[in-house]
This record gives sequence, C-alpha cells and structure tokens, in this order.
Amino acid sequence: MTLRIIATGGTFDKHYDELAGKLGFAESHLPEVLKRARITVPVALEAEYLMDSLDMLDADRQRILASCQQAAERAIVIIHGTDTMRETAEVLGAAGLDKAIVFTGAMIPYEIANSDALFNLGFACGVAQLLPAGVYVAMNGQVFNWNNVQKNRTAGVFVSNPV
Amino acid sequence: MTLRIIATGGTFDKHYDELAGKLGFAESHLPEVLKRARITVPVALEAEYLMDSLDMLDADRQRILASCQQAAERAIVIIHGTDTMRETAEVLGAAGLDKAIVFTGAMIPYEIANSDALFNLGFACGVAQLLPAGVYVAMNGQVFNWNNVQKNRTAGVFVSNPV
Amino acid sequence: MTLRIIATGGTFDKHYDELAGKLGFAESHLPEVLKRARITVPVALEAEYLMDSLDMLDADRQRILASCQQAAERAIVIIHGTDTMRETAEVLGAAGLDKAIVFTGAMIPYEIANSDALFNLGFACGVAQLLPAGVYVAMNGQVFNWNNVQKNRTAGVFVSNPV
Amino acid sequence: MTLRIIATGGTFDKHYDELAGKLGFAESHLPEVLKRARITVPVALEAEYLMDSLDMLDADRQRILASCQQAAERAIVIIHGTDTMRETAEVLGAAGLDKAIVFTGAMIPYEIANSDALFNLGFACGVAQLLPAGVYVAMNGQVFNWNNVQKNRTAGVFVSNPV
Repeated sequence: MTLRIIATGGTFDKHYDELAGKLGFAESHLPEVLKRARITVPVALEAEYLMDSLDMLDADRQRILASCQQAAERAIVIIHGTDTMRETAEVLGAAGLDKAIVFTGAMIPYEIANSDALFNLGFACGVAQLLPAGVYVAMNGQVFNWNNVQKNRTAGVFVSNPV
Repeated sequence: MTLRIIATGGTFDKHYDELAGKLGFAESHLPEVLKRARITVPVALEAEYLMDSLDMLDADRQRILASCQQAAERAIVIIHGTDTMRETAEVLGAAGLDKAIVFTGAMIPYEIANSDALFNLGFACGVAQLLPAGVYVAMNGQVFNWNNVQKNRTAGVFVSNPV
Repeated sequence: MTLRIIATGGTFDKHYDELAGKLGFAESHLPEVLKRARITVPVALEAEYLMDSLDMLDADRQRILASCQQAAERAIVIIHGTDTMRETAEVLGAAGLDKAIVFTGAMIPYEIANSDALFNLGFACGVAQLLPAGVYVAMNGQVFNWNNVQKNRTAGVFVSNPV
Repeated sequence: MTLRIIATGGTFDKHYDELAGKLGFAESHLPEVLKRARITVPVALEAEYLMDSLDMLDADRQRILASCQQAAERAIVIIHGTDTMRETAEVLGAAGLDKAIVFTGAMIPYEIANSDALFNLGFACGVAQLLPAGVYVAMNGQVFNWNNVQKNRTAGVFVSNPV
C-alpha cells in the first residue's frame, strides 16, 4: 500500500438523516469518494469510528495514534473534524512517528452543494506522498505544521499561529 | 503570489451548451472552483484560451510555455485536456525552467456528476508547492515525470512508460 | 401572473452554515431553482419568512393565509416544512378560498445530494394549475386533500388518513 | 399501477462516457431518479430503447405507440428528446387513445449541473394524473396540447403555435 486514509468523521463525512432531519453519521462516503477520484495508487482505508470532532475523547485520539503506529504505510491522511483537528494533531505530533501524517477535513460536508471536501482530500493525498516525516494540517490550499496552526472560527479558515 | 493556475480547457472545464446540445467551452469554472476550495494562498489565474486538447496546436503550447516563463510564481498548475497532456508536458519539460510545473485535468467534466476534477485540482495544488523544479503530470492520485507518463486510453488512467 | 409560489422555509430551503456547522436559513434557493426549472409561465414569488415548520406559530399561519387571500393568482404553491404541513393546510382549508393551493416540501434539502426538492416543486407547480379550488398536499408523487393526509414519520412519507 | 413512465432517452437521460469523452446512453437514470423522488404511487417503468430523438425513426415511434396502447395505466409519462418531441406526440395524438399521455424531457441532462430534468419529471408526473385523455407536451412549467406546440430552438423553450 502507498497511502493509508483514516476517516474519523467530522464535517467531511456528515450525512443528512431525512427521518431525523439532522446531519449525523452513517456509512463513510470515502469508498465512493476514492472511486470517484480514480486513484490508482494502492490505498488502505479505515473508516470505522465516525464522530463529530467536538465529541472526540482522549481515548479516540489514542486509537488514531495506534492506527498510525501500526500502519505499514509511510504516508497517512487523516480526515478529521476541523474544530479539534489541532488537538488530535498535537497528540500525534508529540509521538514523533517516522511517517508523514496529514490531517484534512471540510468546512462543508461532501454531500452538500459547494463542498470543499474533494479538493481538500486531493490536496492532502498529494502532499502526504511528498512531505518529510511529521504531522501536518492541510487546509485552505496550505500545509501547516501541527505545532503552528489554528482555526480562525470567525473566518472559517486555518492560519498560522501569531508570531 | 504563491501559485499560478493556467486553465487551458480540456475535459475539466467543458460546459454543456443546452441550445447546441453539446459540450464545449464558455467561461472557465475556475473562479467558482477556487472559491469553493476556500484557498487562502494567493493564486494568479489565467483562463483565457480554453480548448479541447486535441485541437491544440504548437502555437498554443508555445503560448503556455511563455506564460510559465513569464510567471513570477515558482509553483504552476496547468489544467489541460488528458489526450495531449503528455505532448504539452514534453514541450515544457524540454525548456528546463526553474519552476515546479504540474499538469492535471479530469476524466469527467467539473459540472458533470461524479467528476474527478476537484480532487485532481486539489492534488495538483498540493504537490506543486512541494515538488522540486521540473514538469510533472498529476493524475489518478500519482505524480509522474513528464518524460515517463502516458495515458492508457482503454482504462482511462495515466501510467508510467513500460520499462 | 399564472402561479404564485410562497416559500416558507422548511427542509426544502435549508442552508448549511459552515461557520456554525449547522443547517439553518439564509436567502431562499427559489430564485435559483425557478431559473433552473426554465419556467416560462409568469411566477410571483414570496420568500421572506423562512423558518423550520416546527417553529411556526399561529400568527405565521395567518400571514400565509393573508398572502393567499390577497394573491391575484388562482394557482398557489406553498413550500413548507413537512412536520406541520398538515396543520397549516388545515388553517387554509378551513378558510375555503376560491383558489387551488398546493403544499409541497422536501425530505432532503435542495442543496443536499439526492434531494427530492426539485421533483416535488415540479409536481406541485403542475397540479396547482389543474386542480379545482381547494387546499392540497402534494408529496411523494401524490395529491392529498388537506383533510385527508398525514405524515408517517417512521417511513418519512405522506399517506391518507386511515379509514 | 397508477403511472407508466416510458424513457426513450433524449437529453434527459444522456450519460457522459469518460473513455469516449462524449455524451451518449448507458443505463437509464430513471430507477435512481424515481427512488430519489420518493414516489409512493405504483410506477411501471419502461427504459429499454434509449436514443437521441434526432435518430428516432418511424418504427421507434410505432413502438412507443404500441407501448401506450398495451399499457394498463391511464396516466403515461414519456421522457423524450426535445428536438422531435412534437413529431412523436403527433403520432400518438393522431391515434386518439383513451389515456393521458404526457411528454417531457430536459434541456440539460440529469447528470449535469443545473439540470431541469427532475423538475420536468415531477411536473409531468403530476399533470399526467389529472389531465383528461389526450396527448400533451409538459415543458417549461406549462402543459401544451400535442397539436399546438413547438420548440423555439433559439430560446430553447417550448411555445404555442403562432395564431
């Protein structure tokens, strides 16, 4: 395998439940998305524990870390909610694995009009294959180091930390 | 500017003309696409000469080369039809510019269901910022060197040249 | 004018607010939808008070009734949340106006993949021009009288009252 | 069955073939469309002979007529290319069947952004259940009699014949 993709839910993978009238999680969209992307490099996909990143506990972050540690692949893309993407990236960054781990997500769910999900996934799958070992956030067409990134919630974009 | 995007048409940017009942070219979708992608890095966009890559003449390739030569940006993404992407990449590859120039495109137009356009653009925008100077084709989740790539028309995917 | 369309919000018109991470209401999608539908009959559109139909008060229903009473058009389509569509239809049905008033809505918002909104609107715009004066619910490819319809919330479909 | 839908192809059902780089016909979108429309009335679907309506021969029109004659349903929707919709409607109109037969189609294919297909199908499915026996064209939010309709190719809309 060339690339591992770990889908953890977040806005990217939210699904509208028409009986409840709410956005939540059902099956991940990732299998469909990867087919659509026409990727020919071998991809290992993990998409079992989908959740809102505001609901993520330390145990969830440890599980993601364990997935990365056990992965045979050097390049890993983690699809994650934007609200606590930085917190999970910190857990992985502190572990200092010899892998290129790239977090991405979406501001608008994949299944909603005008979504940035597909662009962001493409961006992350590209940079994950080229970056040196480390933990990164790839959003808004930029690569940030895990220890120099934050979400500006007012503007809905990721930015570097203020100097 | 961080990134220059040169849209030359191709399948990516085809538009359905409902009066003619055919796919052709109108205004580029790129301004809308870039907004949707929520990119915050400065992007210079050229999208004036949209055409089917089968109609591309040597003069068109020389114009694209001139755009790259004159560009202030080090990272350039060229959106191009897949049928002659390799030919244009060869013209640029032979010129040996000190820039990272990444060709991408789509098998299904941006405005048609299940399009790979947005994924491919994200992928190309990512790798263009990280690759060393050179000319590349970024399709199917892979980066190919300009002198080691071809389109397998039967499968509709890009592959390395046979050894 | 041939047709009046009164948009009151509901699932049909919900919009994803990417900063709040929630579905709510912004501008109505109706101007865009009507253009897309390529309608050539004159349409008067009211789309000022968009709300979730669970939040609708009697004053809101009286406002909708007043709009219908004052309308010059004989055929009126009301886009409404499905949860209390029947309640608002009852208020209008009891008023006995000499107009064909057709309620419709959607189970999945217009801007979310796989939405039934466009089909339902087309259906309602068709039957409103042909039905005798009365108040109707047009959902799931069927026309129901206002006093013989209910939403089966488990199945997410409208059905006649049990005999 | 309440409704018969006969899909004959046309712009509505065109599919982009990414290997050929052209719009053509594959499996009909109708099964997916009907599911999406959440129709609960019983629908009989015929979708075997999909073609561009410019390629339709008299034998094809006779086959469609035979389908209508043999149909158990009183309400029939025929999805047809717009270019010769009127010609096929004339063949059926002249036959004087005791059924409500409603032609519809699309200016933009179902699978292309901004398509009118879903609206038109909803409109046609509604009016077919209410119209008296006859043959009609339902496009642009209007119902036309088969002998008083033509396509204005410049504007891309259906209009009544000039008086």
